[in-house]
Amino acid sequence: MTEHLHRTALTRPTALESMERCRELVDPALRRTVHGLHRDVRDVAAYAFGWCDLDGTARAAGGGKGLRPALALLTAEAVGGRPEAAVPGAVAVELVHVFSLLHDDIMDGDEQRRHRETAWKAFGVGRALLAGDALLALALAALTENVGHLPPNAVTAATALLADTLVELVNGQAADAAFELRPWTGPRAVTVHEYTGMAAGKTGALLGCAAGLGALLAGAPAPTVAAMTRMGRDLGTAFQAVDDLLGIWGDPAVTGKPVFNDLRRRKKTLPLIHALSAGALGQEIAELLDRPLDTADAEWTLHRTAALIRKADGDTQTAAQARRDLDRAVAALGTVTTHPGAASDLVALAEFVADRRH
Amino acid sequence: MTEHLHRTALTRPTALESMERCRELVDPALRRTVHGLHRDVRDVAAYAFGWCDLDGTARAAGGGKGLRPALALLTAEAVGGRPEAAVPGAVAVELVHVFSLLHDDIMDGDEQRRHRETAWKAFGVGRALLAGDALLALALAALTENVGHLPPNAVTAATALLADTLVELVNGQAADAAFELRPWTGPRAVTVHEYTGMAAGKTGALLGCAAGLGALLAGAPAPTVAAMTRMGRDLGTAFQAVDDLLGIWGDPAVTGKPVFNDLRRRKKTLPLIHALSAGALGQEIAELLDRPLDTADAEWTLHRTAALIRKADGDTQTAAQARRDLDRAVAALGTVTTHPGAASDLVALAEFVADRRH
Repeated sequence: MTEHLHRTALTRPTALESMERCRELVDPALRRTVHGLHRDVRDVAAYAFGWCDLDGTARAAGGGKGLRPALALLTAEAVGGRPEAAVPGAVAVELVHVFSLLHDDIMDGDEQRRHRETAWKAFGVGRALLAGDALLALALAALTENVGHLPPNAVTAATALLADTLVELVNGQAADAAFELRPWTGPRAVTVHEYTGMAAGKTGALLGCAAGLGALLAGAPAPTVAAMTRMGRDLGTAFQAVDDLLGIWGDPAVTGKPVFNDLRRRKKTLPLIHALSAGALGQEIAELLDRPLDTADAEWTLHRTAALIRKADGDTQTAAQARRDLDRAVAALGTVTTHPGAASDLVALAEFVADRRH
Repeated sequence: MTEHLHRTALTRPTALESMERCRELVDPALRRTVHGLHRDVRDVAAYAFGWCDLDGTARAAGGGKGLRPALALLTAEAVGGRPEAAVPGAVAVELVHVFSLLHDDIMDGDEQRRHRETAWKAFGVGRALLAGDALLALALAALTENVGHLPPNAVTAATALLADTLVELVNGQAADAAFELRPWTGPRAVTVHEYTGMAAGKTGALLGCAAGLGALLAGAPAPTVAAMTRMGRDLGTAFQAVDDLLGIWGDPAVTGKPVFNDLRRRKKTLPLIHALSAGALGQEIAELLDRPLDTADAEWTLHRTAALIRKADGDTQTAAQARRDLDRAVAALGTVTTHPGAASDLVALAEFVADRRH
């Protein structure tokens, strides 16, 4: 089945084409939802979505890739539904995604995102915080309004999935923040296992929710919804692993972030955690990480650290982990999808996640 | 009917006794819900609920009055249900209440609440923000878990009510913040009408949600749920008006805030908005409000401002508005409650809201 999906994919739209098609279906509903907000939070939200610049000028192409909404719509198609059925779910997950970016940037003190000032930097902490809250409220509203055609227990299941996802998201975010206080090496160092649990919450839960809602809103039976939720979660942890590789080795011109950004920020990412556990090499890396970055040889230190992580196979182990999660996701698709053609669009999206450059 | 309720109330428990009884029913569920969070956010939540001090020591009597959970439970009883049925709703509204306190204190930069440091001051902005998000996520979870005994469309109606409430809450908060930038007097001054709309969102919506969820979870029909929601909203705007009076004239020993606190903060509260519209007196007040507060005569200025607000009937007009909203709430109770005895506990709670000293 998986082989068949791969072959079919050659004649199907690319992941970018699928995401663009989904965006055209979801964008009007998303904008309508945000429009009802008080102007002061709506402006922040429009900026965060990339719909406009700081001065309010509309932007032609903005915002993120729309991976989560696309995942919801393509999953709906893969179980034999119409993509329109999944639009409330797509709207909800995209709102939650931008909510989490708004609040994460405040928590992390990040001043740049997608080559622009972050919202808190541009509008102040208070307005960015409130705009995040607004998007979270709207996410719930998206799943309780305009769903009158659905059986009530589908609506209940959808809001329950969203609730579980939000709790996981927050717990994952808290775990990620708590990792910052842990030592690089030794018995209290962050393990790969702990990291994987954190990433499942921080990133996996929302992609799982996107796929699960897509299946649910398309009317799929509960076991299919559960399988699609797991599929999305695997895709999410693969996504996070690739994100971690890009956080160190991504091209600044493409990612919009400085080279070695996650090393500068001393982020405990997967390549680093793998490398730190590699005996003497790990110890050497830990010593480099303890050096201050305000000296003349800081760039050399970062280069050297990145090179040692590679030497300790931190990058290849991370890539292998991403590939394993991705393969599991694609295999799951082969067992539960009823519409192979539509499912191959999902596979293309999954492959895009693993191969992306930003 | 109303007269009857008032008479019955003499032999019924006081509002404080009712709140204590409700707290005993809700507290275990609330603590269980919060317990599942990551330790780093759970600790902040426990502090914000007043369950423990900064060092983790348990506090005997802490936290707020529990008005919102009590409103949910007493409403359930007033429509003939058991209070236990409303516990998920009580948990949800109390979680939303503490979420809003956590985030509001960050937005307003407030450093003290209930005689203690605010959570962001004690734990940092990042952890307080994330704890707020966590409580909001749990509020939704409270309404989608442990409600298997309810018909699915009751669960759907409950989550829809919560969603609408959250959107109103955020819009009310945004409107309140936007008022800060408006002039004291003239055509662009904040009107009583605008203020009332803001208070309906910021405070009315959540009390309406508490009463509405109480009725809904007790199995009341839709018109009763709607009437109880409106009743709670009226109670909420009365509550806000009394809060505004206490914000200026409340006893610091009781409120835990400095005397004339809202005048110091230049908050556009209802007594002030009423007074500012009073011709020459309003102009005199506006001029006092423009004086800097870092001078030796600052306390005199505040005293004088407060006295002029009284002279312009800002306090009596506010009290009258609170009384009108309260009377409307009590009258509504008379028309929809099926259990007069239980309803009289609600009336006692309503009267407590209007007569409270903190």
